[in-house]
Amino acid sequence: MQLGLIGLGRMGGNMRERLRAAGHEVVGYDQNLEVSDAASLSELAGKLAAPRVVWTMVPSGKITEDTINQLAEVLEAGDIIIDGGNSKFTDDAPRAERLKVKGIHYLDVGVSGGVWGIKNGYALMVGGDAPQVEHCKPIFEALKPAGEFGFAHAGTHGAGHYAKMVHNGIEYGLMHAYAEGYEILKASEYINDVPAVIKSWREGSVVKSWLLDLLDRALDEDPELDALKGYADDTGEGRWTVDEAVRLAVPAHVIAASLFARFQSRQDDSPAMKAVAALRQQFGGHAVKR
Amino acid sequence: MQLGLIGLGRMGGNMRERLRAAGHEVVGYDQNLEVSDAASLSELAGKLAAPRVVWTMVPSGKITEDTINQLAEVLEAGDIIIDGGNSKFTDDAPRAERLKVKGIHYLDVGVSGGVWGIKNGYALMVGGDAPQVEHCKPIFEALKPAGEFGFAHAGTHGAGHYAKMVHNGIEYGLMHAYAEGYEILKASEYINDVPAVIKSWREGSVVKSWLLDLLDRALDEDPELDALKGYADDTGEGRWTVDEAVRLAVPAHVIAASLFARFQSRQDDSPAMKAVAALRQQFGGHAVKR
Amino acid sequence: MQLGLIGLGRMGGNMRERLRAAGHEVVGYDQNLEVSDAASLSELAGKLAAPRVVWTMVPSGKITEDTINQLAEVLEAGDIIIDGGNSKFTDDAPRAERLKVKGIHYLDVGVSGGVWGIKNGYALMVGGDAPQVEHCKPIFEALKPAGEFGFAHAGTHGAGHYAKMVHNGIEYGLMHAYAEGYEILKASEYINDVPAVIKSWREGSVVKSWLLDLLDRALDEDPELDALKGYADDTGEGRWTVDEAVRLAVPAHVIAASLFARFQSRQDDSPAMKAVAALRQQFGGHAVKR
Amino acid sequence: MQLGLIGLGRMGGNMRERLRAAGHEVVGYDQNLEVSDAASLSELAGKLAAPRVVWTMVPSGKITEDTINQLAEVLEAGDIIIDGGNSKFTDDAPRAERLKVKGIHYLDVGVSGGVWGIKNGYALMVGGDAPQVEHCKPIFEALKPAGEFGFAHAGTHGAGHYAKMVHNGIEYGLMHAYAEGYEILKASEYINDVPAVIKSWREGSVVKSWLLDLLDRALDEDPELDALKGYADDTGEGRWTVDEAVRLAVPAHVIAASLFARFQSRQDDSPAMKAVAALRQQFGGHAVKR
Repeated sequence: MQLGLIGLGRMGGNMRERLRAAGHEVVGYDQNLEVSDAASLSELAGKLAAPRVVWTMVPSGKITEDTINQLAEVLEAGDIIIDGGNSKFTDDAPRAERLKVKGIHYLDVGVSGGVWGIKNGYALMVGGDAPQVEHCKPIFEALKPAGEFGFAHAGTHGAGHYAKMVHNGIEYGLMHAYAEGYEILKASEYINDVPAVIKSWREGSVVKSWLLDLLDRALDEDPELDALKGYADDTGEGRWTVDEAVRLAVPAHVIAASLFARFQSRQDDSPAMKAVAALRQQFGGHAVKR
Repeated sequence: MQLGLIGLGRMGGNMRERLRAAGHEVVGYDQNLEVSDAASLSELAGKLAAPRVVWTMVPSGKITEDTINQLAEVLEAGDIIIDGGNSKFTDDAPRAERLKVKGIHYLDVGVSGGVWGIKNGYALMVGGDAPQVEHCKPIFEALKPAGEFGFAHAGTHGAGHYAKMVHNGIEYGLMHAYAEGYEILKASEYINDVPAVIKSWREGSVVKSWLLDLLDRALDEDPELDALKGYADDTGEGRWTVDEAVRLAVPAHVIAASLFARFQSRQDDSPAMKAVAALRQQFGGHAVKR
Repeated sequence: MQLGLIGLGRMGGNMRERLRAAGHEVVGYDQNLEVSDAASLSELAGKLAAPRVVWTMVPSGKITEDTINQLAEVLEAGDIIIDGGNSKFTDDAPRAERLKVKGIHYLDVGVSGGVWGIKNGYALMVGGDAPQVEHCKPIFEALKPAGEFGFAHAGTHGAGHYAKMVHNGIEYGLMHAYAEGYEILKASEYINDVPAVIKSWREGSVVKSWLLDLLDRALDEDPELDALKGYADDTGEGRWTVDEAVRLAVPAHVIAASLFARFQSRQDDSPAMKAVAALRQQFGGHAVKR
Repeated sequence: MQLGLIGLGRMGGNMRERLRAAGHEVVGYDQNLEVSDAASLSELAGKLAAPRVVWTMVPSGKITEDTINQLAEVLEAGDIIIDGGNSKFTDDAPRAERLKVKGIHYLDVGVSGGVWGIKNGYALMVGGDAPQVEHCKPIFEALKPAGEFGFAHAGTHGAGHYAKMVHNGIEYGLMHAYAEGYEILKASEYINDVPAVIKSWREGSVVKSWLLDLLDRALDEDPELDALKGYADDTGEGRWTVDEAVRLAVPAHVIAASLFARFQSRQDDSPAMKAVAALRQQFGGHAVKR
């Protein structure tokens, strides 16, 4: 079927390729006209037959909001907009309401898979109403991995981004569990060959996973991870997951700790630890660093 | 090759089966003589040609210690004892020293894979000296999964159990990351179908793993996990991992939090929270539960 | 000076008493007319000379919002409304804007001290503009403890409630630190007399504090805290503090953990730990509780 | 009464002064003979009438162990050795046993108060047998603060150091709770004057404490804590407290997090966060720092 796809970066570009390989007709649009199939959103709309399906894959926040607003100007009643970016789940219901006024339908889709999705397929979590989910099934089928997994209609508007948000919260926790174990192995005088131990877990063990495969891959490339700084950004979903845990009164020690560790990784010096150092100096005359 | 195998429970019994399927001759011993191939340790020793290899797969602590001591009485210089149980890594070097006096060699092996190992193979992490590791390779090859993964010679005496300990610490963290995400999904009004979301992650997503497959399997059997109490024992390795993090000055927020959550799951009431309730009552006249 | 005081519960009632003892004229209003000095808000306004100062001390959220809206109807340009309840700091600036339209000034005050404030004085953290803070100084002076401490003009609208929120977040952490130490003492075979140890810390030690005094007091009344359940509500500020930590990228392991522990204290069973139990059963055949 | 006091550093020196001010006769010994009252341990023993009481106040570990062994050579049956250093509680019972062979009694005393103890008195937590505790009461009375608090006979050998260990674990948690709140205040655009807010809490508030007084004092000296690096050592007790929590199955999220934060404060780069960065790069092509 036909799909308009806005945003042809790392994720969107790969998705276009995977969809075309599956036989779909994709009209892509990107600010970078070199990779774009249409010179403008209206040209994109003109290249698609109604009812159109247009998927946005641009940075969350203002850019997504603006893109969808502009898109709504060039689409018609009966068309469907799908936001596959990392929008906050609370944006979806109001957005769906705004679009509904114009008769435009809306789906929110959480997309996981990173740069590997082009080959492995993307896990898709969808929020919205059943008829539109049904209508877009061929696109979802092409994007998701072969087999029975990798797709869920999670609930109404917001459910797709919500499921993706929790997915990313879990991802933070998983990565940090491996990371702590890795650091212990490296610190210990008992272990001669840390990468070999990581590798041994890739099959047969309880901790085998795709992330572990990737850690092994990284260690193959750089056995001491010397080329990297211990620094990690966060892209919003981890924060929102902790906020949701707080809102819903769910104890989320692991996910919160993983998020806080990223915050710490970005601090040159810690105001909190300055306060601790100040206190130790005050009561105990303990030596401090200046 | 020939192997003596002591302890034919859930793990040992399956291992005997997998080894025999690979063509090895296994003489098993268990206190339960119905499943045992020898009536005693000395009969077991008598059935093996020197240099013997005998693998213990019994509960860690005193039972393992006693078993190895008794075994040392019936073995000879040049034989090899392998402990595949969940012994603490600090037991291994002294044990190896004691056995060395009699000329008996020692390997410690961390074994992961649970009840699935009989089919999938077991991940093996080995500690000890290279000649004995080499001698026992056929056994390891039969137990480990097919392919390049699932085996590491991690270091000298203790390294095998150490690697397994860290593996289990990571396992605690991974399980708890999924568990927290699961609880948020269940608590949220945004998600209609929690098991479907979990299932969608099994392929294509960044969080795909064997543990996730098992969570999905559990939810297939019992979609609300109604049949289970939120209660989890710990088997030692999680505690030792946190102790090691403390010894080595490794921040291990995630693994420690996962361990503490298990402790909490076993408390009927929390003395700490009684103290919090007492304080709130004292300063604020806040209502308390009695 | 004159003060209107709305809400004469545990906090407001005590504050009226402390203010009167300091020679101020307080006109109190409460829904419970038995304790009220005025039959209505308009009667209260009528009993005060302009420019009036009226302090609200009612539950945060809708009740505070409604009370201030009604109050604005009966006050005049030049009057000052002070909200001393536990409002969320984000409510203050919009509220100040709304009142400004009518020429009414606004201060937000975080009040700490609990049921002891009547005797010890209340710590006051004030947000708003300097002229109004100056105007109300006599009231603040009467409410705060004698001496140089117990009062801060923390910033503009919202700063008072913000400072109180962080105060409560810290309070959660402090209480939980004592609570964990208490639980360890109680669990240990080394300590015969836990209350005696707590008591020994009240003077001379680094951990001496008012909360510790209260813990000792609670143990005097009930040495095993047998009469209490390990259950604690949270009143909003702890959650907002964690949300702020997340917004500002501040690692807040301790405050978050204290909040999560309260969440846990209110769960009959833990969905997360059910998931952990399910996983252990799936991979290891570990026994579960049903 | 007479007391031998070994170790005249920051703590021991002050204690000698406080004891002398209370009218006791203190014979001090230190490696630094300039501050020492005796040239050797045997000279010290010679200056005391039997039954002697000798208090060691030297760094924990080997130095304490050696000092006590040497002391035992120059003392007699019936004498009492008190260790007031930060020894691990597990050292005490074996030490008491060794000394008992020579008829020498032993008390372990946890001492809190830091550099302020000379003025405020020291909180003392004592482990050992009642007759010796009784015999040494005059010394304890002089060292402890005036009033009813600041002293506990916590249990038998080890209880004193155990109580002090938990005290320090709590201290870590308290300090970190304040530190996190401080960092949030500093990070927030709502608060103009962080030191003023801290100061406001010193009286009337629920979070008032001696540590808070010290934080205020530090901010008076250096309002931005510019002169300090966010770096904190740990002296053993925090680690032992977490190990005890693990041994006793006590959830200790707050104390463990405070300890881990100190570990982090001492890392130039985090191996764990390198692993996280590596994983993010692998699956998402996320930018990394090199």
